[in-house]
Amino acid sequence: MTKVGIIGASGYTGVELMRLLVSHPEVEIAFATANTYKGTPVADLYPNFTSSTDMSFTEFTPDLLSGVDLVFLALPHGKAMEVVPQVVSAGVKIVDLSGDFRFADAAVYESWYGVAHSAAGFIGGATYGLTEIYRERVAEAGFVANPGCYPTGALLAAAPFVKARAIDLGSLIVDAKSGASGAGRTPKHETLYGSIDENLTAYKVGKHQHTPEIEMVLSDLAGFDTVVSFTPHLAPMTRGILSTVYADLSSKLSTAELLETAADFYAEDYFVKVLPEGKMPQTKAVAGSNFCHIGAVSDTRSGRAIIVSAIDNLVKGAAGQAIQNMNLMLRRPEETGLTQLGLYP
Amino acid sequence: MTKVGIIGASGYTGVELMRLLVSHPEVEIAFATANTYKGTPVADLYPNFTSSTDMSFTEFTPDLLSGVDLVFLALPHGKAMEVVPQVVSAGVKIVDLSGDFRFADAAVYESWYGVAHSAAGFIGGATYGLTEIYRERVAEAGFVANPGCYPTGALLAAAPFVKARAIDLGSLIVDAKSGASGAGRTPKHETLYGSIDENLTAYKVGKHQHTPEIEMVLSDLAGFDTVVSFTPHLAPMTRGILSTVYADLSSKLSTAELLETAADFYAEDYFVKVLPEGKMPQTKAVAGSNFCHIGAVSDTRSGRAIIVSAIDNLVKGAAGQAIQNMNLMLRRPEETGLTQLGLYP
Amino acid sequence: MTKVGIIGASGYTGVELMRLLVSHPEVEIAFATANTYKGTPVADLYPNFTSSTDMSFTEFTPDLLSGVDLVFLALPHGKAMEVVPQVVSAGVKIVDLSGDFRFADAAVYESWYGVAHSAAGFIGGATYGLTEIYRERVAEAGFVANPGCYPTGALLAAAPFVKARAIDLGSLIVDAKSGASGAGRTPKHETLYGSIDENLTAYKVGKHQHTPEIEMVLSDLAGFDTVVSFTPHLAPMTRGILSTVYADLSSKLSTAELLETAADFYAEDYFVKVLPEGKMPQTKAVAGSNFCHIGAVSDTRSGRAIIVSAIDNLVKGAAGQAIQNMNLMLRRPEETGLTQLGLYP
Amino acid sequence: MTKVGIIGASGYTGVELMRLLVSHPEVEIAFATANTYKGTPVADLYPNFTSSTDMSFTEFTPDLLSGVDLVFLALPHGKAMEVVPQVVSAGVKIVDLSGDFRFADAAVYESWYGVAHSAAGFIGGATYGLTEIYRERVAEAGFVANPGCYPTGALLAAAPFVKARAIDLGSLIVDAKSGASGAGRTPKHETLYGSIDENLTAYKVGKHQHTPEIEMVLSDLAGFDTVVSFTPHLAPMTRGILSTVYADLSSKLSTAELLETAADFYAEDYFVKVLPEGKMPQTKAVAGSNFCHIGAVSDTRSGRAIIVSAIDNLVKGAAGQAIQNMNLMLRRPEETGLTQLGLYP
Repeated sequence: MTKVGIIGASGYTGVELMRLLVSHPEVEIAFATANTYKGTPVADLYPNFTSSTDMSFTEFTPDLLSGVDLVFLALPHGKAMEVVPQVVSAGVKIVDLSGDFRFADAAVYESWYGVAHSAAGFIGGATYGLTEIYRERVAEAGFVANPGCYPTGALLAAAPFVKARAIDLGSLIVDAKSGASGAGRTPKHETLYGSIDENLTAYKVGKHQHTPEIEMVLSDLAGFDTVVSFTPHLAPMTRGILSTVYADLSSKLSTAELLETAADFYAEDYFVKVLPEGKMPQTKAVAGSNFCHIGAVSDTRSGRAIIVSAIDNLVKGAAGQAIQNMNLMLRRPEETGLTQLGLYP
Repeated sequence: MTKVGIIGASGYTGVELMRLLVSHPEVEIAFATANTYKGTPVADLYPNFTSSTDMSFTEFTPDLLSGVDLVFLALPHGKAMEVVPQVVSAGVKIVDLSGDFRFADAAVYESWYGVAHSAAGFIGGATYGLTEIYRERVAEAGFVANPGCYPTGALLAAAPFVKARAIDLGSLIVDAKSGASGAGRTPKHETLYGSIDENLTAYKVGKHQHTPEIEMVLSDLAGFDTVVSFTPHLAPMTRGILSTVYADLSSKLSTAELLETAADFYAEDYFVKVLPEGKMPQTKAVAGSNFCHIGAVSDTRSGRAIIVSAIDNLVKGAAGQAIQNMNLMLRRPEETGLTQLGLYP
Repeated sequence: MTKVGIIGASGYTGVELMRLLVSHPEVEIAFATANTYKGTPVADLYPNFTSSTDMSFTEFTPDLLSGVDLVFLALPHGKAMEVVPQVVSAGVKIVDLSGDFRFADAAVYESWYGVAHSAAGFIGGATYGLTEIYRERVAEAGFVANPGCYPTGALLAAAPFVKARAIDLGSLIVDAKSGASGAGRTPKHETLYGSIDENLTAYKVGKHQHTPEIEMVLSDLAGFDTVVSFTPHLAPMTRGILSTVYADLSSKLSTAELLETAADFYAEDYFVKVLPEGKMPQTKAVAGSNFCHIGAVSDTRSGRAIIVSAIDNLVKGAAGQAIQNMNLMLRRPEETGLTQLGLYP
Repeated sequence: MTKVGIIGASGYTGVELMRLLVSHPEVEIAFATANTYKGTPVADLYPNFTSSTDMSFTEFTPDLLSGVDLVFLALPHGKAMEVVPQVVSAGVKIVDLSGDFRFADAAVYESWYGVAHSAAGFIGGATYGLTEIYRERVAEAGFVANPGCYPTGALLAAAPFVKARAIDLGSLIVDAKSGASGAGRTPKHETLYGSIDENLTAYKVGKHQHTPEIEMVLSDLAGFDTVVSFTPHLAPMTRGILSTVYADLSSKLSTAELLETAADFYAEDYFVKVLPEGKMPQTKAVAGSNFCHIGAVSDTRSGRAIIVSAIDNLVKGAAGQAIQNMNLMLRRPEETGLTQLGLYP
């Protein structure tokens, strides 16, 4: 059994890690820290744990690190950087779910997140963990920066076509629709039931901090720098991100050819499934699961590809992909403990 | 008092006409037909009418026309064309909410709707009724083809910028998210609660029948033919369409300049409101109302305008705009009976 | 035109008063106070007002009172009592939507609300305003204590049968299901979208502060003291209370007889509608409206009456009934400005 | 590996069986029949299976039975009785999820379900499978009649107190609130998104077919015949039943004593969890899981016990309990393949 710790476990991604890890056959959760909830039973905050654990949240102290093989950091951005140096020096593997170590260039982070980076020296040690794209690097890594939820959805949709040079990268637009759990568990007027229910809105248009992360990977895949328009929307549902990606086609590919391009790209992947022609991804089909569904249409009238992906923002967009990365880092089959299907209906 | 009839009153748009008309101060509903529900009290199907009317649905017979000044056709496409000739020959004004008479060219209709047009000779008599754009023509019309819900949202967002030649029309993309009431009241697996709830999906990608309607008006405003990518999505809410419109900017306009362009365009309009910089439209803000909210951002990094509009698909996208058009046709202030605010929260 | 002020206008009931009053034909809103939001445009918090008002929230100062005929107090309990003495001494009529002045006995209030009453001397001046039951008193009142949302739904269901001595009062059980707007606009973990969506739970079982209010009116109607079991539930919707009331029948009444009893009781009432046999109230049928729908079944096997009512908690359960009371206090027809139908679908 | 078949697999309970069985470590699904969908891939109807199976629905033919150890009947009531004789004669074990074989007396079935029983001779061979109550019998059974969803929720709440003779059975009232999936997958106006969303209603008041099933078990536990009032409600969520049970206390038990009574009763049960004092069950805490949460309050003012239970209607209320029963019938630990936690948030 591998022993893991979760630091910052009381938020939605932290507790989703716990939900998935309690049924992981080869992992034991050694601790789950949440300073504000020190001593509070997990089931007090998250009643789905009533049935399965009597674990309580604990306060983080560095000596906890001596008992574990790997820690997940489920802290807000700006907080993970405070902890990483201690974990690294303790020789413990890390999967960091925050945005703190995703960018090679601390200046990019600082300008989009509006936070000074206090541990820039550790950025070089982190491997960006979009598993399907960087699997080999992840398998060698001791410190993985887990991708953001929006970048995961957008990049899994776009990657096959960028790699195949099928689309004009400068024309790429990502229109993403997320469930409200993406906004986290901190009470705000914007995420009250009365604000989200029966409502749809765009937010942070042109300035969401996941934009440079999408651009970083697209540029890496293409071999040259690129800029995208990324527009996040808040939808009246708890889980799920549907990403609709638009791009001019470089050459006249049919819908069948687009789908074949994607299917070839993901031929060996357990978690990414390309739907048959005529089918479109639905967020509910992957709710609670680590799967990503992809559909595509060649809009021949406009000469554009329209590619759509669906993920659960808390699973493939956060905790599930983190565990997928952990599995690789520990030389286990990446799907271990993650084969649960979506909850539908 | 003006006497009106509603033909095809049992669907969602028909009954929304009734909801709005029962509180219209200068209109009396003479009849509401629904052949399948002949004799059924309206309140049996729509319990919100319990409190206000003992009207029952009746069967349509041509002699009903002699008692009214205007009829609303709330029939499915393909059915309105069967009735229009009789209504025209009876000398009764028409607002048709179906798609049957929106296109000058019957061939366009037939190719997108997959239906042969049996009353093509009457198309020339119909005026396309996107009120804010074609107000003068509507005021002179005896027969108005009321716009589709998606075109209303998309066109009100795009029109100011097309008119101002601020955007490159060939780059225009419409990503629209609709509530489930847009799919109508006929029971289908796709619109069951279990299929829509907690779910988001794209549908009819590249082939939705509202595409040519959007293109028709954009081409008319621009003075040349254009093609758009239009992608409709189904969102887990009953009412509302949020349209996110992307287009390359022709010249470097700031967000403030975009908003000023829109505000100038709609300066005299009661129902279209341009939000201040930093605010984005929300569908719930206009739920149950005839208002349209518009926001815009200049995405300077990509050189694109991102324009967002919110409407209630059943009101400004259907029944409300139909009554707005009726008011104009009857030489009344267009907001008469339509001043109700959105239901929020 | 009557001039009114709203004190504590930024909460859900305050802003619902504004939504209804802006379309009231004989009322002008002179001010809307919200100390925390002093200077903030109403439309910034509640985007449905974008289209209709440029009013901003102001700070409460006593001199505001000189310009108005009546004020609505939409303050939390414990806060209304701080303002009432000033308003009374200014000679301004009051409709208080808080719980502070509903009980003749301050001790009852103090024990259920857990708050000391600082203005007990003013309780005697207040008239409890469940309109359909106490209409005559309300018409004479200068200070009305507007009922709670749960008591309104439960009492409108039970009253006809208590009055008719058709049920055994000691057996009365109220099982009520409320939308989340009843919990107000203050951000809390319990009312986040992620906590309410797809969830149903009971809360404050056996100790909700609306219990003694229900008992007070039932006891008054019956002529003797009584105790009820009242269990509130939180349902995944924004608006609406469905109250299911159980009571042993005193004599063998059929469903038809129960419905006739209720229909007779409410024969002259505009807002309370008794449904025909076989129909049951739905909260959505009254959403956004001041109507209350009532259904009943005689469960002959168990000898019980099962009575169900539906209201919109923010309208008939708060702001709508407050305006209904205002209309009476100002000698206007009680339905003035309140005839809007429910928003369905 | 045990080989199982599912007959009537295209409905919500059938496909939920499949979702749970594909991750059951010791079961292989040999066939899934659905005559209407013969040849249709399961993933076409239920997109969550995209990722995991290429199984298609097949037509039922008796020869399928020769390859399996056990079949689940997920047919509508009235249809299961047509198949049972063939399965019994083939010597294959049965878990029947319909209502057809739950009642010892065919006349009770016929009067509440309104259907003549064509296989009454097989009723005697069926064991009623409310696992926690009848575990020993289930373990010996070859043919289990799986309980209805409402009876499961109501009986698990009431059973400990009936057994302990803590409540007056004649006073028992069950107020149950169900998600819309309980109404099945057949498209109906009543279960459209527009009908359920933001809506709450009671239905079949006094005449729901699950009433006699609740009474049958309560009478069996008590040792004498009893009658209950059972009122089902439809709530705007997909999954979950919250049952609120009211009963007069036979003696003055405190909340702590009630909870202890329940905790003792379920001390050995894996799936039924009694919450600590002050906590109330939430349907979302058990969504997608086979757990049942129970809370209770002694309402000392009225002398009543108020007991609340939460289950997922499709899991513990149908497919999960069916697999729990299968596990027992096959002499496996009853929780095998069913340990998945609720999906929260």
